[in-house]
Amino acid sequence: MKNSLNERIDLINSNFKKYLSPIYPELIYEAMGYSVFAGGKRLRPLLLIGACEAVGGNIEDALPFACAIEMIHTYTLIHDDLPAMDNDDYRRGKLTCHKKFSEDIAILAGDGLLNLAFETMLETASQKRDFKYVDAALTIGNLCGVKGTVGGQVVDLLSEDKKADEKTLLYIHDKKTAALIQAALMAGAIIGGGSKDDISKFESIGYDLGIAFQIKDDILDVTSTTEVLGKPVGSDDKNNKSTYISIFGMEKAQKDYKELSERASQKLKDFGDGANFLYEYSKLLTDRIN
Amino acid sequence: MKNSLNERIDLINSNFKKYLSPIYPELIYEAMGYSVFAGGKRLRPLLLIGACEAVGGNIEDALPFACAIEMIHTYTLIHDDLPAMDNDDYRRGKLTCHKKFSEDIAILAGDGLLNLAFETMLETASQKRDFKYVDAALTIGNLCGVKGTVGGQVVDLLSEDKKADEKTLLYIHDKKTAALIQAALMAGAIIGGGSKDDISKFESIGYDLGIAFQIKDDILDVTSTTEVLGKPVGSDDKNNKSTYISIFGMEKAQKDYKELSERASQKLKDFGDGANFLYEYSKLLTDRIN
Repeated sequence: MKNSLNERIDLINSNFKKYLSPIYPELIYEAMGYSVFAGGKRLRPLLLIGACEAVGGNIEDALPFACAIEMIHTYTLIHDDLPAMDNDDYRRGKLTCHKKFSEDIAILAGDGLLNLAFETMLETASQKRDFKYVDAALTIGNLCGVKGTVGGQVVDLLSEDKKADEKTLLYIHDKKTAALIQAALMAGAIIGGGSKDDISKFESIGYDLGIAFQIKDDILDVTSTTEVLGKPVGSDDKNNKSTYISIFGMEKAQKDYKELSERASQKLKDFGDGANFLYEYSKLLTDRIN
Repeated sequence: MKNSLNERIDLINSNFKKYLSPIYPELIYEAMGYSVFAGGKRLRPLLLIGACEAVGGNIEDALPFACAIEMIHTYTLIHDDLPAMDNDDYRRGKLTCHKKFSEDIAILAGDGLLNLAFETMLETASQKRDFKYVDAALTIGNLCGVKGTVGGQVVDLLSEDKKADEKTLLYIHDKKTAALIQAALMAGAIIGGGSKDDISKFESIGYDLGIAFQIKDDILDVTSTTEVLGKPVGSDDKNNKSTYISIFGMEKAQKDYKELSERASQKLKDFGDGANFLYEYSKLLTDRIN
């Protein structure tokens, strides 16, 4: 493996600095930087550069997009945490953006990050004069708007305090969680020069990994402890949230989780040695305990 | 003039339908459509297609971007109206998005529109395989993020209930109002195939028009009546908002307004007959009484 996990995370983090160095009005950069550096695992950026590498591409080419997709992920968290949405005071043990700053600044920090993500991708496309960056940005854009992440959050809100049916729950898990994971893998493969077949493989790997990731989340909320998880367990039940377990039962959840993650691993093996990092990382991801 | 003002507005409005036709979850499309069709004058789209035409381009090429810039303008209004921001219940005599729907849906409708604007621009660039669309999208992106509109709203919020200094007021008017007008004109000129010189001319026309437009707003808030203006007059004073008049006085406001709008008109004349619509429209704009 070319770089260790920590080296890759350092590479992503150091790249962020060029986008978030405060200028006037500094407060909004502080708020955006606060949330971007609030302890995220860099899951989506790591998948993006991993997919680029898996198809034989150069990781460096994918770095601006790795930062962009994390900006998008971060903006969704900031807006989801707002009082009018999930009303969360803490995330990963730190104050949420609107509690640390204020609600108006948090809304604008989210808007600023979403916009900055597209600025970053468009600037890369404009400078490099290569349409693969346009296609990668469009892929991400289509999966994080109303047809993707935003749509998933809408259905999640509309399903609050009532039992969702199977189709609705799968829609939410697909759009709220899997979509951005698919976007990361597909965009990475596009930037790495992958074939249409490669990109479509990553679309399905992203779906499997994304749903498996979300089922694991739902399982851990029931089976873990607050100490291990780093956030209160049983919160889905407390918030009357439908989960994979409340809809399908724990047995099917465990079984589907295992099948989906194994299917994703198997498909990753098709990419050969270039996908070694991605293979190991996806194992790490699905075996996680918090 | 090729098309009358109303024909152009109809053209823009009918183009919106292809982006906002409701699919599941319909509610978010309804909320986005509600605000997009809440009586906006289509100022920025008209400027965008006008600039495209002024440099000899084809209006049709610019239509997706005309819709995109209006989506961006609309999202800023939805978010600015939120309780945590300006807390406005009405805009142009209609309920604001969060009053008509709910606060969570309004936040997501804003996010959805901003994202859809970039999807629309990227899709055009990806389909047409022409980098002018990338450059136009980047120009818009840079002017509506933290270095532009979002930054302007941040400084506006931070200046609430205190007297802004001249520099701060000009920053707010520049970023909150002029930036998106510059973006419209510059993007239109880029799509129309304008030269670097054309684009830079439109940058300065956009600044002059934008600041003149905002000074006129400030003047009308003092001199008009609620009946003519269609919204309560004296609101800036009531909300302790610094305005061009409270900072520079009415005499200088009138004088600067006249100078800026005349300078913009003069520069538009340089573009010859192709800029006839834009010239007439900018006259209409600066002579407006509401």
